[in-house]
Amino acid sequence: MDPTDRETACFEAGVKFGALYHQFAGTPVSAKNADSLETAIEESIENQPGCSAVSVDIHTDKLETTRGYTELTGEYMDVTLRIEYADCIVHAEMEMEDGYPLMRVVDIVEE
Amino acid sequence: MDPTDRETACFEAGVKFGALYHQFAGTPVSAKNADSLETAIEESIENQPGCSAVSVDIHTDKLETTRGYTELTGEYMDVTLRIEYADCIVHAEMEMEDGYPLMRVVDIVEE
Amino acid sequence: MDPTDRETACFEAGVKFGALYHQFAGTPVSAKNADSLETAIEESIENQPGCSAVSVDIHTDKLETTRGYTELTGEYMDVTLRIEYADCIVHAEMEMEDGYPLMRVVDIVEE
Amino acid sequence: MDPTDRETACFEAGVKFGALYHQFAGTPVSAKNADSLETAIEESIENQPGCSAVSVDIHTDKLETTRGYTELTGEYMDVTLRIEYADCIVHAEMEMEDGYPLMRVVDIVEE
Repeated sequence: MDPTDRETACFEAGVKFGALYHQFAGTPVSAKNADSLETAIEESIENQPGCSAVSVDIHTDKLETTRGYTELTGEYMDVTLRIEYADCIVHAEMEMEDGYPLMRVVDIVEE
Repeated sequence: MDPTDRETACFEAGVKFGALYHQFAGTPVSAKNADSLETAIEESIENQPGCSAVSVDIHTDKLETTRGYTELTGEYMDVTLRIEYADCIVHAEMEMEDGYPLMRVVDIVEE
Repeated sequence: MDPTDRETACFEAGVKFGALYHQFAGTPVSAKNADSLETAIEESIENQPGCSAVSVDIHTDKLETTRGYTELTGEYMDVTLRIEYADCIVHAEMEMEDGYPLMRVVDIVEE
Repeated sequence: MDPTDRETACFEAGVKFGALYHQFAGTPVSAKNADSLETAIEESIENQPGCSAVSVDIHTDKLETTRGYTELTGEYMDVTLRIEYADCIVHAEMEMEDGYPLMRVVDIVEE
């Protein structure tokens, strides 16, 4: 059975999350470059089809800085994104839950 | 509005595709290591929740080999995956279409 | 035989180039996000030990934009970096040569 | 001043280490796929110019497996590689030291 527009919109939201996470996980990050990295992640993923808004918040206060920087993982950032496909708008987010970065669909709206 | 199980299953399928693509794009590949890379991609993504099967086919005949190897991109591989979430099974695939690697949901089944 | 300071400085320059390339290759890029991506690459790699300056120039005029964006590869950027280790300063660069992104040490200075 | 062959060989060793680390960091890994991932990392990096041997050892006993898998980082693997450039052979390795994955040149031999 073919996907509905809502299902396709959810699929697209998932693609963006997987892309975002695995493209940027491992990037060296500290308080010095957190701002520029947030912006670069947001703007690069917004290039992708149907991705109208991405917001990334890196928790600079949580970064392990014994060595001066650490590698970016889901532990250090919250992400929200908005996908538009056909008449559907999907809001999705990534947040820590029980020590694990959980990605999920928060809301689907049909216009 | 919360997602249905079908919609969540589609979201999860998208996450796996985005992860797979952006984790492994850029990996040095030639005819010599295509087999081991296919297996590693399949088995690593199968670790993820709800991902019951991944199949990767790297087109070794299409690899640009003037320099001995090239960097993996969607142009050089087809991927199919199977996601199970609640009572839903999603089949999704990535194939080239008009020179662009297109990821899409092929089928959703509720058991 | 142990490496000299000059040799260690060259090793460190290589580490930064390999890291930079394989961290960011595959990132969605267009004229819209080239600036923020350049800055993020520079500032993230400058976190690494001994890396005092990184300069990235993305060739927005060469980006394939039929689909609105493309994936970043060495074909689309020039990079220079400066490594300091002990009394040595290494300048290294990545530029296209014969259609291939060539990384090389340009100069080593002992102070 | 131009680099010597030994210095270029060290630079090349660094490039391979940076590439290896930032290409594969973040890959989902568990005891189930550690073997195939080791092989894929070794064979993909061996494609690169002058890289005659790569050995990757993933410490499956150290992997955090509460969720069934974790993301690969330097904490979970040792790597050795051998670079040949002109008459020089460089041995380099990555090992944990003080909780940090340290990459270094172990030996340089001129034939």
